[in-house]
Amino acid sequence: MEKINVLVIGGGASGLQAAISAKTTHPEKSVFLVRKEEKMLVPCGIPYIFGSLQDSDKDILPDKLLTNVGVEIRIAEVTALDLENKECLLSNGNKLYFEKLILATGSIPTKPKWLKGSDLENVFTIPKNKLYLDKMHDQLKGVKKVVTIGAGFIGVEVSDEMNKAGWDVTLVEIEPYILSKAFDKEFGVKAQELLKTRGVKVITNKGVQEIKGKDGKVNHIVLTNGEKIETDAVILSMGYAPNTGLAKKSGIELNELGFIKTCEYMRVNNCSSDIYAVGDCAEKRDFLTRKLNATMLASTACAEARIAGMNLYGLSPCKTFSGTIAIYDTAIGDVAFGTAGVTEDKAISENFDILTGSFTGMDKHPGTLPGAHEQTVKLIVAADCGMIIGGEVCGGTSVGELTNLIGFLIQNRTNIRTLLAAQIGTHPLLTGSPAGYPLIKAAEVLAKKFKK
Amino acid sequence: MEKINVLVIGGGASGLQAAISAKTTHPEKSVFLVRKEEKMLVPCGIPYIFGSLQDSDKDILPDKLLTNVGVEIRIAEVTALDLENKECLLSNGNKLYFEKLILATGSIPTKPKWLKGSDLENVFTIPKNKLYLDKMHDQLKGVKKVVTIGAGFIGVEVSDEMNKAGWDVTLVEIEPYILSKAFDKEFGVKAQELLKTRGVKVITNKGVQEIKGKDGKVNHIVLTNGEKIETDAVILSMGYAPNTGLAKKSGIELNELGFIKTCEYMRVNNCSSDIYAVGDCAEKRDFLTRKLNATMLASTACAEARIAGMNLYGLSPCKTFSGTIAIYDTAIGDVAFGTAGVTEDKAISENFDILTGSFTGMDKHPGTLPGAHEQTVKLIVAADCGMIIGGEVCGGTSVGELTNLIGFLIQNRTNIRTLLAAQIGTHPLLTGSPAGYPLIKAAEVLAKKFKK
Repeated sequence: MEKINVLVIGGGASGLQAAISAKTTHPEKSVFLVRKEEKMLVPCGIPYIFGSLQDSDKDILPDKLLTNVGVEIRIAEVTALDLENKECLLSNGNKLYFEKLILATGSIPTKPKWLKGSDLENVFTIPKNKLYLDKMHDQLKGVKKVVTIGAGFIGVEVSDEMNKAGWDVTLVEIEPYILSKAFDKEFGVKAQELLKTRGVKVITNKGVQEIKGKDGKVNHIVLTNGEKIETDAVILSMGYAPNTGLAKKSGIELNELGFIKTCEYMRVNNCSSDIYAVGDCAEKRDFLTRKLNATMLASTACAEARIAGMNLYGLSPCKTFSGTIAIYDTAIGDVAFGTAGVTEDKAISENFDILTGSFTGMDKHPGTLPGAHEQTVKLIVAADCGMIIGGEVCGGTSVGELTNLIGFLIQNRTNIRTLLAAQIGTHPLLTGSPAGYPLIKAAEVLAKKFKK
Repeated sequence: MEKINVLVIGGGASGLQAAISAKTTHPEKSVFLVRKEEKMLVPCGIPYIFGSLQDSDKDILPDKLLTNVGVEIRIAEVTALDLENKECLLSNGNKLYFEKLILATGSIPTKPKWLKGSDLENVFTIPKNKLYLDKMHDQLKGVKKVVTIGAGFIGVEVSDEMNKAGWDVTLVEIEPYILSKAFDKEFGVKAQELLKTRGVKVITNKGVQEIKGKDGKVNHIVLTNGEKIETDAVILSMGYAPNTGLAKKSGIELNELGFIKTCEYMRVNNCSSDIYAVGDCAEKRDFLTRKLNATMLASTACAEARIAGMNLYGLSPCKTFSGTIAIYDTAIGDVAFGTAGVTEDKAISENFDILTGSFTGMDKHPGTLPGAHEQTVKLIVAADCGMIIGGEVCGGTSVGELTNLIGFLIQNRTNIRTLLAAQIGTHPLLTGSPAGYPLIKAAEVLAKKFKK
C-alpha cells in the first residue's frame, strides 16, 4: 500500500488547482492526483471545440502544470474510500493511504427524467469528457440541423460556435430571454438579438415537452405549445448536477441540493481536519443572499481549490471562501458580456432595497478610433448603505477584466461613494475616456439617486 | 457684472470633469466654464493625431458633455482674479462674480533653458492646443526625418504613431531604457525592443547637448557624447510644468515644485472654503511615499475634479483624494503595457522593504485560440505587512482594465494573502484561465517568498 500525504480525487479545473496549491504551499509533502480520464479538457474551452478550435486536442489542460511542480498523476477510478482508515481503493486494484484528502469530483450534465426521448440516438449533453465529446463531434459532422435546449452560457456558446461552423442551429429557452440567470433583461435581450443576427434561431418563453424519434434517431422536438421543430440532433444544456456518489457512499455529508457540505476553509463533515471538497461537487452559497445555490464556474472552483490547498496543514483566517460572487463573461462575436454579484431582478426578488445606475460610453477614446466599441456598465447598489452588490457589463474584449474589477469591488464591500472618488487609469486604445469611463459614470448616475 | 455660483477656469479634462461634477451634484447652481480655446482636444488622444486618427478634428472633447448637463461655456482668457471680492476679469472685458472657484489651468510643455537651439524653426513641443498642433502637423508633413527627445508616454506614443505614418523617427532618451519612470527594466526593455522592431530608432543612455540649425531651421542634434544626428524636425517631450501664473499672481499658494497647494478635498490656501484646484496645475503627492511629485495624468486629474465638484457645497469624508497612484497604460502595436503604484526600482530607492512576484501566462485560454497574447503580471508588495503597493502588466488589449483592477487593489490597501483567496471570472476569449490567471499566479509566486 502506497502512503502519500495529499490525495486529490478529480482532474478538472478544481482538482488541478487544488493539487498545485497543495504542492506549492507544502513542497515537502507528496501530492497525488487521481482521475479517470487520460486527457483533461479546459472546461470553459469546450464550446469552442465545435467552432474556433475545431478539435478537442487544442483544448487540453496540460499535465505538465501538475508534473512541473511535483504532483504525481494516477489514471484510475476511485472505487471506494475508507475515511476512518484513510484508505482509497482504485479500479486497478491499488490502494493509497492518505493523510489529507481533497474531493474534486466535479459535476455531470443533467438529463431530466421527465423529458421523453432524451435517450434517442443523436441526443447529446456536454460533459467534461474528451472521449464523449470527440464521438459526439464526429456524429454531428454527419448532420445539418441541431436544436440546443437551455440558453445558459454553455447552450449559448455551443449554439453560436456551431452556427459559425455551418450547422443550422435552433436554441430553445423556457425563460423570456437568454442568459436570464446572469443578466438583467436589457443585457440578455441584447445578447439574444446579436445571436439571432449571427444566424442562430432563438425560441424563448417556450419549454420542450418531448423529443420525438424515427427509427431510434431524433426526428423533431415538440414544444410546450405543441409546435414541432424538425432536427437531426438535440443538445441538452439544461444544467449540471454535483458528482457526489462516491462522497455519499463514503459517509460525507451532503446538503439538500446534493452538494458536499463545506465550511469556509472548504473542510467537509462539520470542519473535519483532513478532508476537503472543492469545485462543482462542493457546496455553493451566495456571497450576498447567503442562500445555498448551484452556480458552477471553473473560476469559482479554482478559488475554492486554492483555499483548500493553502489551508491543508494549518488554517489562515484571511484565506477563506466567503460565498460565490459568480463572476463570469461570455462573448458573442466581438461583443462581450460580463456579470458579477446579483442582477437587479435577483436583488429585488431576494428582498434587497436597491438602486441601480447604468452608463453607456465607448471602450476606446476618442470613440472615432478604429475598433472602438460601445461599453455599458450597470451597477446594483444597496439603497441603505451604498454597498455595491452587483454589476453587468457589455462591450469589447476588455469586458472580462472590467468585470473582474467589479467583482473585486463587490468582494471588498466597496461603497459607491468611495468609487466616485476612485482613481482609474485610461488610455485611448485600451479604455474609456477619463471623463467618460463608464464604471465611474454609472457610479455618478447612482450618486444622484442617493441625493433624493 | 454677471453673478454665478460656480466658476471653472480651464477646459481640459479636469476642467470639463470638475464642471460636470459640480453641476450634476448641485443642479440648482449655475456653473460656468471659462477657457481660451475654441475647441478642446482629448488630451490622451493627441499622439494619435499624427497616425491612426490623421486629423485633430477626430480628437475633440465634445462641448455637449458640458452643455447637456447645463454647464455654460465662455471662450475667453482670464486676465485677473480678485479672490477677496470673488471677481474674475475676462479678456473680452466682462466680469464674473462667483461663489465658488475651481482652477483647472493645466500644464504647459517644458522647453529647458539650457538646451541651445530649442527656438529654431521646426522644433516643436506637444501642448494641448489644437491650433498649435494643427500648424505643427502641417509643417511636419513637409519633412522626412524627426527626432523626439524624451521617452516618456508622450514621446513614445508620438514616435510610434509618426513612424507608422511614414516619418523616419529617432527617439532619444537619457535613461537606460524608455518609459523608465513608469516601468521596471524588464517591461521597459520589452517596450523598447518592440518599438525598434516597428521601425523607430531608439537611442538610450544619451542626453541631448544642443540642437543645431542651418538658415534658422533645424539641421541636426548633438548628443552628450558628441554624436550628431541629422534631422528635419525635433519634438521635445521633456515633461510639462504646471500652468500656475494666474494662481500665483492672485495670491494662491504654490508648493516648492510650482503646483497649487491643495488639501484632500482639493481646496487651496490652507483649506479655503470656496477655492479649489484640480488637474495638472494642482499639487500631486504620491499615494505611497507621501512625497510631492509631478505626475500628470488625465485620469488622476478627473478623479481630483470629481472630488472638488462633489465637495463644493459640503464636505464628504469618503470623497477625498488620498494621493496619486499613477495608474496608466500605453500600447505599442497590439502589445499593451500598464502600471499602477510604485515600480520595484522606485520602492527600493524610497526605502521600502519589498517582495515581488511575476507570472507570464496567456490572456485567452486555451492559448491556442486565435489572437491570444502572452500576459505578464508583476506585483510589488510590502515585505512586512503584505500590502500590494505596485503592479505592472504587459499583454493584449485587456491590459487597461487589468491595470485598473490592480489600481483598486492598491487603493484598497489589499493584502496579498486575501488576493490568493479572491474570486475572479474567466472566459476563453477574454481572460487567462481559471488555474493560470496571471494576477493570481503572481500572488502565488509572492506567497512562496513570504513562507521563507
